[in-house]
Amino acid sequence: MSFYIGLDIGGTKCAAVIGSLDGQVLSRAFASTPQSSSGWNTVLIDLVRRAAGAAGIRPEFAGAIGVSYGGPVSAAGVPLPSPNLRGWDGFDLHASLAQTFNVPVRILNDANATALAEYWWGAGQGCHNLVFLTVGTGIGAGLLLDGKLYVGRDGLAGEIGHIVLEPAGPQCACGKRGCLQALASGYAVGQAGKARYGDESITGVDVVQRARLGDSIALSILRDAGRWMGTGIAIVLQMLNPDRIILGTLAVEAFEFIVPAMRETIAANAWPEIAEGVQIVPAGLGHESQDRAALAAAMYGIR
Amino acid sequence: MSFYIGLDIGGTKCAAVIGSLDGQVLSRAFASTPQSSSGWNTVLIDLVRRAAGAAGIRPEFAGAIGVSYGGPVSAAGVPLPSPNLRGWDGFDLHASLAQTFNVPVRILNDANATALAEYWWGAGQGCHNLVFLTVGTGIGAGLLLDGKLYVGRDGLAGEIGHIVLEPAGPQCACGKRGCLQALASGYAVGQAGKARYGDESITGVDVVQRARLGDSIALSILRDAGRWMGTGIAIVLQMLNPDRIILGTLAVEAFEFIVPAMRETIAANAWPEIAEGVQIVPAGLGHESQDRAALAAAMYGIR
Repeated sequence: MSFYIGLDIGGTKCAAVIGSLDGQVLSRAFASTPQSSSGWNTVLIDLVRRAAGAAGIRPEFAGAIGVSYGGPVSAAGVPLPSPNLRGWDGFDLHASLAQTFNVPVRILNDANATALAEYWWGAGQGCHNLVFLTVGTGIGAGLLLDGKLYVGRDGLAGEIGHIVLEPAGPQCACGKRGCLQALASGYAVGQAGKARYGDESITGVDVVQRARLGDSIALSILRDAGRWMGTGIAIVLQMLNPDRIILGTLAVEAFEFIVPAMRETIAANAWPEIAEGVQIVPAGLGHESQDRAALAAAMYGIR
Repeated sequence: MSFYIGLDIGGTKCAAVIGSLDGQVLSRAFASTPQSSSGWNTVLIDLVRRAAGAAGIRPEFAGAIGVSYGGPVSAAGVPLPSPNLRGWDGFDLHASLAQTFNVPVRILNDANATALAEYWWGAGQGCHNLVFLTVGTGIGAGLLLDGKLYVGRDGLAGEIGHIVLEPAGPQCACGKRGCLQALASGYAVGQAGKARYGDESITGVDVVQRARLGDSIALSILRDAGRWMGTGIAIVLQMLNPDRIILGTLAVEAFEFIVPAMRETIAANAWPEIAEGVQIVPAGLGHESQDRAALAAAMYGIR
């Protein structure tokens, strides 16, 4: 049986998984994200060896290594430095993995890798045009159009978190004001929670938990976020006329609280013939999402 | 030599052209757009026969017939009724052409067909991700992504003229308010001209002509339109990260007057790494645009 190696590289933790062609995870290993450039090579190679060891296989026999990278990836597949990932500058991930294990390496941005994983194994099965929207600290999209990932000239297609919806709105991490991300991300929901509850310890996750208990402030914060999400999604619909929109990350937990308001602004801003045909669903891969995304990257172009 | 037949179907006139595989036009014929369903079949078949006759060829020997249709076309290639085209409902264009001439028929929306023609023969040559923006009475886009047309689930991808930019803005033909089309189309420019000059006969073309003579009111109207175009294009850039944006129709004539203001709002609304890499150019096919679009439709999937 052929098997694949997935590496998930995020801002706080990294993981390696071994998986089969149908996306089943056979083993995994974790590490904290390195904080310096000298740490990257050792940590990632060691992670791969540990995951492979746990599955009783040799990494040199893998069909491919895929990376789901929590930052921008160029159209040619080169992961670029990201504010979340320290010491990346100058580290050549592709060469490190390819030379150590002598297997093909494919690196995708995490939103794109997750779009692919949802398409093959999750909530995106059976459709050809899907937009995976990750709604976490940031908002980004993976675009799968006519059954293929579309990444654009610089690999930055899908940066819809930075569409400006409210020029006088709150400051965004990107430097502009009123981006979708500054209005509807998990971070934005947390900021609204801090302000509305007068408590600096409140996070986006806390707001969703309070909404689940029926807290009216939390419900109103998520309604506002839902309205902005709907405004942003209406733009995606007019532009791409997709079959399905998949909402991931915090939006899975918050789905029921954001969707009614979201549908209202979609109806107000998009054409009915486009809006009525699109399915809007929560991501389907749950806690396996990141593992599967990394494995999907390994299999892109093969499977 | 193989040759192709193109049919351009617009709101006021229709044309048939005979062309070679490299897009050269060998002959053409024109007719007024029929105003009833019984007229369509006769007029279009006659047009094809006249254009073929002028080129000294038999239409039955064409490689394919392509149609550039001035209204929505489903993803399966069926032209849908449009407010600009009377009596279309119930007319089966594909069957009419295919049965009469017994050749393959391919029908594209005019913005998509023009995107393809610009890609092969005009201002889109040499790039793989381009957005052709037609800025006439309406605003629509043809999306050519990774070298292929992308039309979406219902063939409505690229309806970016109906992204709402200013919810309190002017009424749009689609029923919503403040759509890009209501703010920056040739129609919108004409409306602004009527209001600013107090003259109901002013059109968008008149405003561009006055701008060319240095008229300050006309220049200010086109600056405003350029600002909104830039706001809309910034959204396209964040979403699709294309190589090139091609502005067609009235925007070719108005290019120099709208571009400076357009670049300002693009810079304010899109990421520099995306905005600085994209080329924004006027359409390159000039008065041959519609002929070439129809021929491109004939050759899509063949050439």
